[in-house]
Amino acid sequence: MKSEEIRLEDLHAGKFIEQKVDEISAAIGTGLAMNALSGGVDSSTVTMLGYRALGERLKTYFVESGLMRHDEPKKVVSLFEGLGVPVEIIDAQEQFFEALKGLTDPEEKREAITQTFYSVVFGQLVRGSGAKYLLQGTNYTDVEETVAGIKRQHNILEQLGIDTEERYGYTVIEPLIQLRKPAIREVARALGLPEEIYRRPPFPGPALAARVIGEVTPQRVEVVRRATRIVEEELCDTGAFQYLAILHGDRVTGIREGRRDYGFQIEVRCWDSKDAITGSPTRLSYDVLDKLADRITTGVPGVVSVTYNITHKPPSTIEPI
Amino acid sequence: MKSEEIRLEDLHAGKFIEQKVDEISAAIGTGLAMNALSGGVDSSTVTMLGYRALGERLKTYFVESGLMRHDEPKKVVSLFEGLGVPVEIIDAQEQFFEALKGLTDPEEKREAITQTFYSVVFGQLVRGSGAKYLLQGTNYTDVEETVAGIKRQHNILEQLGIDTEERYGYTVIEPLIQLRKPAIREVARALGLPEEIYRRPPFPGPALAARVIGEVTPQRVEVVRRATRIVEEELCDTGAFQYLAILHGDRVTGIREGRRDYGFQIEVRCWDSKDAITGSPTRLSYDVLDKLADRITTGVPGVVSVTYNITHKPPSTIEPI
Repeated sequence: MKSEEIRLEDLHAGKFIEQKVDEISAAIGTGLAMNALSGGVDSSTVTMLGYRALGERLKTYFVESGLMRHDEPKKVVSLFEGLGVPVEIIDAQEQFFEALKGLTDPEEKREAITQTFYSVVFGQLVRGSGAKYLLQGTNYTDVEETVAGIKRQHNILEQLGIDTEERYGYTVIEPLIQLRKPAIREVARALGLPEEIYRRPPFPGPALAARVIGEVTPQRVEVVRRATRIVEEELCDTGAFQYLAILHGDRVTGIREGRRDYGFQIEVRCWDSKDAITGSPTRLSYDVLDKLADRITTGVPGVVSVTYNITHKPPSTIEPI
Repeated sequence: MKSEEIRLEDLHAGKFIEQKVDEISAAIGTGLAMNALSGGVDSSTVTMLGYRALGERLKTYFVESGLMRHDEPKKVVSLFEGLGVPVEIIDAQEQFFEALKGLTDPEEKREAITQTFYSVVFGQLVRGSGAKYLLQGTNYTDVEETVAGIKRQHNILEQLGIDTEERYGYTVIEPLIQLRKPAIREVARALGLPEEIYRRPPFPGPALAARVIGEVTPQRVEVVRRATRIVEEELCDTGAFQYLAILHGDRVTGIREGRRDYGFQIEVRCWDSKDAITGSPTRLSYDVLDKLADRITTGVPGVVSVTYNITHKPPSTIEPI
């Protein structure tokens, strides 16, 4: 499909949907396609486009990687069931944690997740289902950042010269590749997705693994999952572009009941941004910061320290790894 | 010497000075004593008390550990020379970095610094000078925290049952052990020390090594030294109790000139506190936070991310390790 950007001001959501539904139908013909739904705005939009084009010939899977947010699988699946779109949950927690074992380098962790996602989990589903096509929510910013060498987005394959048909046994179709986030939100809204989806802040492909510095274990993901839940509850009404909790690898000294407690540190980031290209830390009030630190240090076992990011993007990035 | 607390409201600085000068004179008789001056309010106060009691029989050394702040040795020595107190600089950078090589555990790092300070550097000076007494600025909060097992202060020996005479060849005298910081500042002022000394924010015994998470190398100390200089310049007029820059061991993704830069993170802490027992993050304006992040990411090579501590003490501590 085409890859030049369609800017928000040039987007006609209704026409775009019509065109993409036609393109998907044409590309897949009478075959089967599948897609992975994470519950973010990109994959939700792709799910709706695919379902409009293919109906029951689209198999939508929610991959439970063990890296998702609190209650995410249950919530997302029931939301889509409410829209008439069937979603199957695939439990792949063991495979992901096995692949991530002992890795601390961010690029190696991303690579392990990509391989597990596409090769192990999806390869298996493709072979089982007979689907030859994978619909995917890659967007324009993902392409740009990968090409610039800033971050390897886990869903960029073609741009890196990887032939998915040869390597994984299926063709990737990326209907959102010309859009940035604000345009995708418009399309999501026009597709009838609820506000909790089309307004949803961005969430990284590698999920909570992108927010664990150092080794990604079930225990460490649980720490950042609990912190993430608190951060999302406290900041969802701020209107910020994105907000996140990061578990640091470093440990710092704290005090619990008058005694030393060498514990974890959580970093909170909350971004004002239009398009994720540049961003600035949201000027949260100190009452809000106090409440965040207090809830995280009392509600997440082992955490003795919470910081707030004060760096703009650039030179920071939105996510830490 | 006595060890029950003298509270600020019960302190008569003039009488306290007279009494301590007498006690020091009596303890040392006609012998020689020495002390290490770091330039902080505690060791500066001890230097003045010792010099009043002993005059030229006090040998004051400034140990250049390689872990001090920018220009510190030069500044401190010339300030004391201005007050008529001679100070000798001892270059021990190699010994400290050699002892710290490969260590990442906070307690092991503290222990290496303690050993290098007391055993290697001071042991040598004692043997060379013939002094049998070491005057030291241990204060009441140091004792409390060490006894509680929160942190091992590097200057607490007797409380831990270590016989310095047997172990290191000298007796430690601690004239400030009954006072907390605010009382020590009063005494410093009454001793005629300038405001830049008696108002000076606390600085840890292990110096910048206490602000490097992970291994302490000359390069990593230089990063935190530069960040510290910026933080001190920007925050010295806030009236805060203490402010510091911490170099994290974790690295995070950043962007420089459109390309990925996997770089360092600096954490800034700024504390409101009366006595270091409890503390809360100073509510710095976002303009100040912006300026800090901007100056640190542009002025300190390799740093792509700056955070601000938002946790109270407890459960945090003032310093990170």
